[in-house]
Amino acid sequence: MDVLFISVYVFSAQENKTRYKMESLLKQGRSLCPFLKRSSPTTLRMLSTRTSSSGISALAVAGKRCPVIGKTMRQAARTYVAPTTTRKAKMATVETVHINAGVGVVDLSKGVEACPHISATAAAMNKSVSSVLKSKTSVIQPSEDVNTSYSYESFYQHELDKKHADKSYRYFNNINRLAAEFPKAHTAKEDERVMVWCSNDYLGMSKHPKVVHTMIDTLTRYGAGAGGTRNIAGHNRHAEALEKSLASLHRMESALVFSSCFVANDATLATLGSKLPGCVILSDSSNHASMIQGIRHSLAKKMVFKHNDVADLRAKLESIPKNVPKIIAFESVYSMCGSIGPIEEICDLAEEFGALTFLDEVHAVGMYGPTGGGVAEHLDFEAHVSGQYARKPITSRIDIITGTLGKAYGVVGGYIAGSARLVDTIRSLAPGFIFTTTLPPAVMAGATAAIEHQKAYNGDRVLQQLHTRQLKSRLDEVGIPVVPGPSHIIPVLVGSAEKAKAASDELLREHDIYVQSINYPTVPVGQERLRITPTPAHGAREQEVLVGALESVWEKFGLRRVRDWEVAGGRAGVGEGVEARPIWTDEQVGLAKKEVKVEVEQKVEEAFRPVEVAAAA
Amino acid sequence: MDVLFISVYVFSAQENKTRYKMESLLKQGRSLCPFLKRSSPTTLRMLSTRTSSSGISALAVAGKRCPVIGKTMRQAARTYVAPTTTRKAKMATVETVHINAGVGVVDLSKGVEACPHISATAAAMNKSVSSVLKSKTSVIQPSEDVNTSYSYESFYQHELDKKHADKSYRYFNNINRLAAEFPKAHTAKEDERVMVWCSNDYLGMSKHPKVVHTMIDTLTRYGAGAGGTRNIAGHNRHAEALEKSLASLHRMESALVFSSCFVANDATLATLGSKLPGCVILSDSSNHASMIQGIRHSLAKKMVFKHNDVADLRAKLESIPKNVPKIIAFESVYSMCGSIGPIEEICDLAEEFGALTFLDEVHAVGMYGPTGGGVAEHLDFEAHVSGQYARKPITSRIDIITGTLGKAYGVVGGYIAGSARLVDTIRSLAPGFIFTTTLPPAVMAGATAAIEHQKAYNGDRVLQQLHTRQLKSRLDEVGIPVVPGPSHIIPVLVGSAEKAKAASDELLREHDIYVQSINYPTVPVGQERLRITPTPAHGAREQEVLVGALESVWEKFGLRRVRDWEVAGGRAGVGEGVEARPIWTDEQVGLAKKEVKVEVEQKVEEAFRPVEVAAAA
Repeated sequence: MDVLFISVYVFSAQENKTRYKMESLLKQGRSLCPFLKRSSPTTLRMLSTRTSSSGISALAVAGKRCPVIGKTMRQAARTYVAPTTTRKAKMATVETVHINAGVGVVDLSKGVEACPHISATAAAMNKSVSSVLKSKTSVIQPSEDVNTSYSYESFYQHELDKKHADKSYRYFNNINRLAAEFPKAHTAKEDERVMVWCSNDYLGMSKHPKVVHTMIDTLTRYGAGAGGTRNIAGHNRHAEALEKSLASLHRMESALVFSSCFVANDATLATLGSKLPGCVILSDSSNHASMIQGIRHSLAKKMVFKHNDVADLRAKLESIPKNVPKIIAFESVYSMCGSIGPIEEICDLAEEFGALTFLDEVHAVGMYGPTGGGVAEHLDFEAHVSGQYARKPITSRIDIITGTLGKAYGVVGGYIAGSARLVDTIRSLAPGFIFTTTLPPAVMAGATAAIEHQKAYNGDRVLQQLHTRQLKSRLDEVGIPVVPGPSHIIPVLVGSAEKAKAASDELLREHDIYVQSINYPTVPVGQERLRITPTPAHGAREQEVLVGALESVWEKFGLRRVRDWEVAGGRAGVGEGVEARPIWTDEQVGLAKKEVKVEVEQKVEEAFRPVEVAAAA
Repeated sequence: MDVLFISVYVFSAQENKTRYKMESLLKQGRSLCPFLKRSSPTTLRMLSTRTSSSGISALAVAGKRCPVIGKTMRQAARTYVAPTTTRKAKMATVETVHINAGVGVVDLSKGVEACPHISATAAAMNKSVSSVLKSKTSVIQPSEDVNTSYSYESFYQHELDKKHADKSYRYFNNINRLAAEFPKAHTAKEDERVMVWCSNDYLGMSKHPKVVHTMIDTLTRYGAGAGGTRNIAGHNRHAEALEKSLASLHRMESALVFSSCFVANDATLATLGSKLPGCVILSDSSNHASMIQGIRHSLAKKMVFKHNDVADLRAKLESIPKNVPKIIAFESVYSMCGSIGPIEEICDLAEEFGALTFLDEVHAVGMYGPTGGGVAEHLDFEAHVSGQYARKPITSRIDIITGTLGKAYGVVGGYIAGSARLVDTIRSLAPGFIFTTTLPPAVMAGATAAIEHQKAYNGDRVLQQLHTRQLKSRLDEVGIPVVPGPSHIIPVLVGSAEKAKAASDELLREHDIYVQSINYPTVPVGQERLRITPTPAHGAREQEVLVGALESVWEKFGLRRVRDWEVAGGRAGVGEGVEARPIWTDEQVGLAKKEVKVEVEQKVEEAFRPVEVAAAA
């Protein structure tokens, strides 16, 4: 919520002379202000017309809560003279809006500059706030001559120009990950090797002999493709086995496989949100694009709660009657910052307020829990291992878990798991499931092999966690800034789109190390980073090379170290005294007894033996 | 458009006493009436308030065009007394609506029965129209007690009950297509064989040695999965080669690969429709679910034109100024009826009215054109072969072609092809592309091998067409009803959901033949069918077995033959004297000279040699 809020607020004064100017501001606002982006036109209209007993519109009330513009609005409210009770509330609203409209217009320029989101973008682009507003929201308009066709190519070019201007244009790196040399890859040149430090093949399962051999066998026997949708010639033993394996992984009744977890999230949220009568979806502010898209497509009412903020979620739940269908959509591991969702507390709230829990475990499946079931399983680690449950396991309190076969499991595809009826409903209603070709038999068989292997073997997960701890500790020693978090993801803060790209390019060119830079809109402006993901194959030797290369790059480009961020007041948890305890405890990774630490590490390192896959074919 | 239209019409009288009753009718209407379904609430609201000079709302004008309820509405209009010009148009509208509302309510029951869509559903379900309306639209409502949680499990169960009730619940058949025994598959029992007659692996490329060997090699060298999104570690030589191959196939500048063509269509239409300022999307009424979803998600204005009706499309284009950005979205081969879109005429209209052409060639790529480029390429078959172009080739007049790697190319995945700028724009803006794991290297390499093989070799396409002709001709001889069409798809009309499923089950159980029944909502109620897709491996022997089995099933269940449909007045083109000339001409399939017919057939049959793939590994 920021000053652009005011433009809507003003807009609600329909008779106001500035209406047309305000409409254009509204358009700008919608593309920039997180509050406006999240709110549908219908909601905004409703908020602007719904009034409290004192005649203030709900929009004005909400505006006062905005950290940026709230103060200005509260001041404006003080100058407002409450209408006499004999006047109709409706009339009072229009007047209120008129009065505040004036204030809003006056303060608009101040407010825009005060908005951290827009100001940071402008700073990053070395432009004035107003030119950023203009460039971000401009679009090639139709000719005024109604007989001239629209220039589509100019439209494309302009959209691309905008991406170049704000440094969000993506250049893809040609990276060919080699199974037999994991985690190395060759570049566009076949004899040029780079060390990949940013893949989501977290456990190296993409090159695991069990997976590769299963895929070759299946491919040979059943061919390349499934040949149809699940309903027409594309349902087979591989789909059945995979869904059975997934349901058992998550201790759920049933599971359903999709082309990807993007599709699984999108299709499931869109279907439930549109079919459940009057459904409200409560969404964590850091949720993945696929969930945001699913919620938008559902056209259901959406309420965004602050990232991992249980108090804010509670406040929002309290505003909805218990009998109204509602879904709390959140993640276990947030990919770009490495934070972990407060799953148990959210389950408590869901029970209290009668909500469904929708938990995205995409970055957690295979990585957490004694069988790789994700963070929900991990929270009852010891109970699951011993079979002695002191209370209801968390997994049984999650209604819908979604996950991927393309990260820790090393293949491709996504899925949901839940009750038999829920899964059958999505299977029967979601177009994104019904009308699409089934994943190839070899892909499904390979994924099943990966899941089953990881269910039975804990070593890769443990070694991955040990490597994460080691690397975080080494980076801390040399003052390379890591966004603190309890998960396996190591986000190294750079804080500038241009510098993050330059650092990534330099690592690749000069050090044969591939770490992609992560820029806006994937992370907020000013929080650009290198996202590092160690695997069980990134041992001490590989880590030393990486740390040396990062030091050299930090030196060369004069990038900020932890102490610089401390001096600057901190950013994204760096230099702010934040500490994060790993979710895998010392006991769980075998480090509780200090003296066995080395032994354990050696043991797990041995357990992870790269195998020459080529020989298998 | 049908009588339910009236409920909206009535609804627009906001002060009307029947408003709440009407709101519930509107909800029913939206789920049943194609017109209401297609129109957003905003559009309906706009139509109900926008008035002509005579004070009639645009909604009323549109209602009069409805084939079902138009007559009633025209009669109602005659009883309406035009307002005096001194009255405000706004007042007149409200009055008009009130007057017509009364008429509407009176005629609602008649109208519903007259609506072919609802009546046919009711007939199929042996229920009254009102109970169909009720069951189709009912949903588990929240408890009236605000302190009672919503019953999500009851909601799921009720949704499933509705699917069972209207026979649209899908039972998946476990079909395991065997590469070495193509087109045979084993069922849940590994030693039980069935002949698959309904796969979309149209050319058997899923078992082609070139494809399978390429995939095994790639899998061995580069592992199972890509390990990331295209931007983060998931871009590689396989993606580059595949996109280059696709661009060249369609004679376009550029191409972009997605998880599936469902995602490609959804993401591309949603992105363009939402970003092009004021965009209008004109959509063929038979378009695939993925396009319908993409258009809905774009929130752009949508106008649906009658299936393959160029005159209707022209009329709709004429209603939009030329300078307004617009997209004509259509298909080349419509999968369920086998019809083919009037591509050239639509290109003419697009040029005349300044529209983008968006052509889905999912069921045509690999199958039409001298290099498998689809129907757009096929329309200039001889020119492409000779390199002598008398006019601008059709391919250069299509702005966006979308296709799949999962049907004729036998693997999985989807794509778009178009100008470099268009493709770069979608690459840069579409969440469904950006935030999803890249297809596995082996999948992309296998697809590239399939495309390149089919580019260079015409034999499979020709043999597939010959088999289609042969089978259509044999079915015609015995009077088994085939929906007439110019493509490779053979829809056999049954005309009842229950009987179509029974026929499919009987073929599988008693004849070891797998043809999935296609029921509502994939096809209209009353047009249920068996969708047969011959491949180059479905020769004369296999065809004889199929025809014999169909005859036996037709006999056993007393299904209608062509002559029965003639007597009944025809349906879906059957028994209506419709003839369709194959798009592959006699010359193109080598049948122009009668005397060489047998020779050609032998030649192509020889060219298609099933190979023991197992030996290759």
